[in-house]
Amino acid sequence: MPTNRQILLDNRPQGEASTSNFKLVSTETPALQDGQVLVRHHYLSLDPYMRGRMNESKSYAQPQPLGEVMIGGTVGEVVESRHPKFSAGDQVVGMGGWQEYSVVDATQPGAVRKVDTTHVPLSHYLGAVGMPGVTAWYGLVKIIDPKAGDTVVVSAAAGAVGSAYGALAKARGCRVVGIAGGKDKCDYVVNELGFDACIDYKEHKDAYSLAKALKQACPNGIDGYFENVGGMVLDAVLLRMNAHGRIAVCGMIAGYDGQPLPLANPALILVNRLKIQGFIVSEHMEVWPEALKELGTLVGTGKLRPRESVAQGIEAAPEAFLGLLKGKNFGKQLVKL
Amino acid sequence: MPTNRQILLDNRPQGEASTSNFKLVSTETPALQDGQVLVRHHYLSLDPYMRGRMNESKSYAQPQPLGEVMIGGTVGEVVESRHPKFSAGDQVVGMGGWQEYSVVDATQPGAVRKVDTTHVPLSHYLGAVGMPGVTAWYGLVKIIDPKAGDTVVVSAAAGAVGSAYGALAKARGCRVVGIAGGKDKCDYVVNELGFDACIDYKEHKDAYSLAKALKQACPNGIDGYFENVGGMVLDAVLLRMNAHGRIAVCGMIAGYDGQPLPLANPALILVNRLKIQGFIVSEHMEVWPEALKELGTLVGTGKLRPRESVAQGIEAAPEAFLGLLKGKNFGKQLVKL
Repeated sequence: MPTNRQILLDNRPQGEASTSNFKLVSTETPALQDGQVLVRHHYLSLDPYMRGRMNESKSYAQPQPLGEVMIGGTVGEVVESRHPKFSAGDQVVGMGGWQEYSVVDATQPGAVRKVDTTHVPLSHYLGAVGMPGVTAWYGLVKIIDPKAGDTVVVSAAAGAVGSAYGALAKARGCRVVGIAGGKDKCDYVVNELGFDACIDYKEHKDAYSLAKALKQACPNGIDGYFENVGGMVLDAVLLRMNAHGRIAVCGMIAGYDGQPLPLANPALILVNRLKIQGFIVSEHMEVWPEALKELGTLVGTGKLRPRESVAQGIEAAPEAFLGLLKGKNFGKQLVKL
Repeated sequence: MPTNRQILLDNRPQGEASTSNFKLVSTETPALQDGQVLVRHHYLSLDPYMRGRMNESKSYAQPQPLGEVMIGGTVGEVVESRHPKFSAGDQVVGMGGWQEYSVVDATQPGAVRKVDTTHVPLSHYLGAVGMPGVTAWYGLVKIIDPKAGDTVVVSAAAGAVGSAYGALAKARGCRVVGIAGGKDKCDYVVNELGFDACIDYKEHKDAYSLAKALKQACPNGIDGYFENVGGMVLDAVLLRMNAHGRIAVCGMIAGYDGQPLPLANPALILVNRLKIQGFIVSEHMEVWPEALKELGTLVGTGKLRPRESVAQGIEAAPEAFLGLLKGKNFGKQLVKL
C-alpha cells in the first residue's frame, strides 16, 4: 500500500484564512473493497468555493468537517481496480481531495469518470473542460443567455472561469469585457484570451471610478455580467447595466472572510428591470455533457488556451490556495502531485 | 366646454416630496378633434411609481415633465365622443392624469378602454382589476411561479398590490404571509384579506428582529417574495429565503427620496441560489388579458374584497399622495373627482 500524504482542515479561520488552518499528515492507503479503485492523483484543483466550506456557517454546501481531508477536484490515473469498468492506467477525473491518492467507490454514479487526453491535456479537465468551464457555460448560456452583439462582462477574467467565459461568449458573437487585477492579467486577457477589453480594478479607488472605465469599455452598456467577486466591482457594474440585463452570481470572493459586503444600490435592480441569479454548477448536472462537449471542442481547436498556475507538491497546496484567494494566481490554480 | 382643474408638477423634490412641488390650475377643455373623446374622471389612482417620475434622474421611465399634468390612471365616463366606438355614458379606464377631465386620442391602442361594471365596481379597475392587480399577478405568476404548499411573502400587504397578491396566492394553494405597518393593517390583512399571517414591521427595530418574526410566521422558510418597499424589510426576508427562492422586485418605496438604501448581505443570493428580478408591468402588456380575467373573477366572486382609501376632490390629491408614500393609506389610494 503506498503512503498517502493528505491535507486536513485542522481548525476554522477567524476572519482571513491562513496556513495554520491546515495540517499535513501521512497515512497508508487502505486495501480495496469490491467496486473500488485506487487513483494516484496527478493534479489537484484549487478553487474559491473551498474557502466557503472552511467556515462553520451555512453556505451553499455543508461545511468541510474538521480533521478530514479537504475537498477538491483531482485528475489522475487508476493504479489498482476492483471495478470491472476501470483498469490500471485509466486517466480519470474525480473529487479526490487534497491528497496524493484516493480510494473511490466507482459504483457511485459520477464519483470517477474516464477522460480522453488525445486532444485535451489531462489538467484541463480540472479547468476549461471541467467544473470551472461548465460554471462559465451555465452562467453565460442558461442565465445571461446573450444574443450576438450583446456586451457581456466577467470579473476575475484571467481565471479558469473567466477564460472559458470569454471563449464561449466570443463564439456567440458578443463583445466581451473582462475585469482583472493588474496590468499583466489585463494584457493576457486581451492579447491571449481574445477579450475585446479588460479593466484593471486595482487602478480604481471606488465603484464610481470603475464605472467610468466600464462606460468607456462598454459604450453600449452591459447586457450580461458574470459575478465572481462581489463588492466594489458589482456596485460598479450595476451602474452600467442596460435595461433587462442579466447577472449570474457564481462567487463573492471579496466577502469570503466573513464581513458582509453590502450592495450599494439595490434599487437599480428595479430601475433597470434586472435579473440576478445565484447558482452552483453541481446542482445542474444535466447540462454537463453539452457544456463539456463545447468546451472540449474550443480547447481542441485552440480557441480556448487557458493558462495554468502550478504549485509543486501537496505540501504547497495551502499557500497556493491562500494566494488564489488574494488573486496571486494567473489562470487556473493547480497543484502538481 | 367644461372647466377642468388640473394638478401640475411645478418643481422637483429636494429629498422628501411635499405639497409645494405641485400646482393646481384651471383651464377649459379644448374642442374635440376627430377620433378624440372627452372623459369626465370619477376616480384618480395614486400609486408609488409616481414618486419616481417626480425625480429628474433616470428611473424605469421618463421623468414627469415640469409644468405638465401629473401622470396617473383614471376611471370615468365619456361625455362627448368623436370616435365611432365610444359614446357618451361609456365607462372607461385610461391614463387621464391628475385632472377632472381628459381629452384622449381613442385611435391610439390602449389609450382608453371600456369596462363592464356589472360585477366589478368602477373604482376597482384602478386597483384589484387594474394595474396594481396585474402587477401582483405578474410578480407572483411569472417570476415567483409558486407551487401549492410554497410559502410566499409580500410587503405593503394591505395595499392594492398586496391584497391582490394574497388572493392570487391563496388560489394557488400557498401559505401567504404579509408584512405591513401597524396593528390595524395587519389585522385587516389576516381577517379580511385571508392571509395566513401578517407581521407589523414597525414593531421591529432592525432586520434581525424582523427576520426572527418571519421565522415564526414562515416555519418552512420563504420560497417567494414580492418586494414593494426595500431597505430593512428586504434584508430581513433575505435571511429567511429558502434555496432556489424567487424575489420579484416591484418597488423600493423606502428609497424613493434619493438616499440609496444598501442591501446588507448580497452573498445570500449565492448562498441560497436566489433569483431576484425587477419588473414593471407596463412592459408586459401580453399578460394583461389573462391576469385581468382572473382578477375580475376573484373580485366578482367575492374572493378578493380590497379596501379603498378615498380622498375627496382633485385639490386633495397631493396630500393623499404624500400620505401614501408614508403608508398612511389603508388599501388602494384613490381620489374621488
